[in-house]
Amino acid sequence: MSYGVGVIGAGTVGGGVIQTLLSNGGVIADKTGVAVELRHVAELNTENLKEFDLTGVTVSADAKALIADPAVNIVCELIGGEGVAKTFILEALGAGKHVVTANKMLLAKHGEELCAKAVEHGVELRYEAAVAGGIPIIKALREGLAANNIRAIYGIVNGTCNYILTRMTEDELDFEPVLKQAIAKGFAETPPDLDVLGHDTAHKCQILASLAYSTPIDLNDIYVEGVTKVTHLDVAYAREMGYLIKLLAIVQKSDGEVEARVHPTLVPKEHLLASVRNEFNAVFVKSDIADNTLYYGRGAGRLPTASAVVSDIVDIARNTNGAPVPPFRYTHKLAVRDIGLLQGRYYLRLTTEDHPGVLGKVCSSLGKHGVSIASCIQKEEQENVPAHIVLMTHKCLESSIAAALDEIDANAFVLEPTHLLRVL
Amino acid sequence: MSYGVGVIGAGTVGGGVIQTLLSNGGVIADKTGVAVELRHVAELNTENLKEFDLTGVTVSADAKALIADPAVNIVCELIGGEGVAKTFILEALGAGKHVVTANKMLLAKHGEELCAKAVEHGVELRYEAAVAGGIPIIKALREGLAANNIRAIYGIVNGTCNYILTRMTEDELDFEPVLKQAIAKGFAETPPDLDVLGHDTAHKCQILASLAYSTPIDLNDIYVEGVTKVTHLDVAYAREMGYLIKLLAIVQKSDGEVEARVHPTLVPKEHLLASVRNEFNAVFVKSDIADNTLYYGRGAGRLPTASAVVSDIVDIARNTNGAPVPPFRYTHKLAVRDIGLLQGRYYLRLTTEDHPGVLGKVCSSLGKHGVSIASCIQKEEQENVPAHIVLMTHKCLESSIAAALDEIDANAFVLEPTHLLRVL
Repeated sequence: MSYGVGVIGAGTVGGGVIQTLLSNGGVIADKTGVAVELRHVAELNTENLKEFDLTGVTVSADAKALIADPAVNIVCELIGGEGVAKTFILEALGAGKHVVTANKMLLAKHGEELCAKAVEHGVELRYEAAVAGGIPIIKALREGLAANNIRAIYGIVNGTCNYILTRMTEDELDFEPVLKQAIAKGFAETPPDLDVLGHDTAHKCQILASLAYSTPIDLNDIYVEGVTKVTHLDVAYAREMGYLIKLLAIVQKSDGEVEARVHPTLVPKEHLLASVRNEFNAVFVKSDIADNTLYYGRGAGRLPTASAVVSDIVDIARNTNGAPVPPFRYTHKLAVRDIGLLQGRYYLRLTTEDHPGVLGKVCSSLGKHGVSIASCIQKEEQENVPAHIVLMTHKCLESSIAAALDEIDANAFVLEPTHLLRVL
Repeated sequence: MSYGVGVIGAGTVGGGVIQTLLSNGGVIADKTGVAVELRHVAELNTENLKEFDLTGVTVSADAKALIADPAVNIVCELIGGEGVAKTFILEALGAGKHVVTANKMLLAKHGEELCAKAVEHGVELRYEAAVAGGIPIIKALREGLAANNIRAIYGIVNGTCNYILTRMTEDELDFEPVLKQAIAKGFAETPPDLDVLGHDTAHKCQILASLAYSTPIDLNDIYVEGVTKVTHLDVAYAREMGYLIKLLAIVQKSDGEVEARVHPTLVPKEHLLASVRNEFNAVFVKSDIADNTLYYGRGAGRLPTASAVVSDIVDIARNTNGAPVPPFRYTHKLAVRDIGLLQGRYYLRLTTEDHPGVLGKVCSSLGKHGVSIASCIQKEEQENVPAHIVLMTHKCLESSIAAALDEIDANAFVLEPTHLLRVL
């Protein structure tokens, strides 16, 4: 018996899925005993289909015809975005079809609604490709680590940001020129906002947190800070202190609440995540039984993403006689912890006039709010260049440091708002 | 509905499984909707059970009673070894019980027989814990990468050897003192032969190759070289050339045959596998659709191994209404390629008398057999210390280099057999 697949949207990812289903059906059958067959493609731009031999495959410009096609058992929504994609997924689920999607934005914003619809109609909604592309991280969290309480997840899950930060570090460049390079090389989209402002990472953070703690998470509760404010100075000072800067999605439990946050983070050089370079992704998971595990690979791109989509298709086909696996299990209802309650270490870069007493005033403001300093870099001043003071704090409460910085930045000798980065 | 689990053998791993089932049933149900329940433990040494509250669990000294217990749906064989373990697995499968095992030796030697028995009786035989402990690598290969042709697998899958090689590298020590340290710290068993001679790695290599290429593999066809002959000199010279030495299980296809081999390997410093330190394991997979992925974690230990065993239990319980997944699919019958046909780069360390013309003679022997040299280290001689010549070759055929070394080592000026290591 073979399972019929319909692909809505033959762009980058959809094209990769079509290619994989056409070329690798044999190896899939060898490995799994499951025959999956491309039966229907819905795409408005027929240019996208020219490279494929679609003999025997229905081609339409109408996703609704695909959803209604009785030859299609599994619908892949690969259009992306929030508009029609949601309509098509809900219609497909409503029609009793299984759905596979790579649409992290939709899942992060409407996961509960989509989940309820899938459960209501007794079908599956799978989304391995939504987080970290070709890395089977959803499967690892749901199945491989099923026996574990998750202690923490640290994910490098946006290839664009990791590429930019890596090039800033290794080529000693500032953000803007590296962004241009990334766009030229196809590692960043125009406009790059969804990536560089951290929102794409937040979508993935929402999905990881929901899965890890079996709880709905409101995307708006996730603290998000992108990479646009990281300068080559921060990269250089961090290196001097033994750290690399990575944009992380961080998920952990704290006092019965969920920490779910996205921000540039100082990662110790020896940490495996520091070795994850350029456009690659990796997810580091701490759990109570398996201890630390890490999953590394390509987080985006035509074929790596297709690998994940097709693995979902195969899983659904394999499980056709079993009970459908719900996309999320909301057995808890946990609050997202306010970022002000975060306990951590902080990197501070102050830009100040260079005159005696500045460091003393800064330290006394920090001390007043209970923030103590672990290390400090202050270089010999150069003429006409503002002085930088770089401080690494001991562990303290984020709201305390925020209060101290309000006070510090109100001083006339502070020339720019102090730059704060969190430490892993 | 809940699924009953029986555990045969409450040693290190079995104890970990009992502990996990007793403590983490709640989180398992939250994440998967599946209730798994420890119903029966068979263990001869009741000392091993003292730490557990086994109220409501049948305890026996008789594995056959456990297998026959109608409350047990899934039998975990956690005795290890080749003796009664095999008998118990075959009996459990024959009785229509699903089996979970961590027994890599048994699978590597009798995988075909065990697989046939499971298929015959329509039950599952799962073994996530058999390779790389807590890392869900079997799941990644069977499911996560189901859409992929596997190009190559490089696995650091023996924590003892990786610990020894890491300490030799970082502490600049020789094999013997580090082995003693490893035994003292519990990272090596006594006798350590199964680990340090590479056989344990070969068992895992056999399993990975069978899975990757859907073919039976004769364990005896796998080339195996352990870490006992690696010296601190090799470690130091390799470092000087930009490499770390790792014991790898290597699986790849070459001209329609399977390369399946285990040997110390020079890994470039920048490669992610070079960052895998101490007792940790990692498996690097190259595949056609997902491209490169890596899976990292603890390859041994009570709880990490238990994490894998329990994930298998949960998968079986989840799939109870579906078709059983066979442990292996032997849809091909591929030969294991002779090591002599290997094409690679080689590190050679020659120990010679120090007199003029030695390097010339060595080079001409290599050249005669078509081996060309990429780089060379020959240090200023010290008195009464034999001279070392370290060579890195260009890509060549292993049988050519073996022939050249036969010729070279027959020279009177060669004081010890030349040491050869393969390069990734």
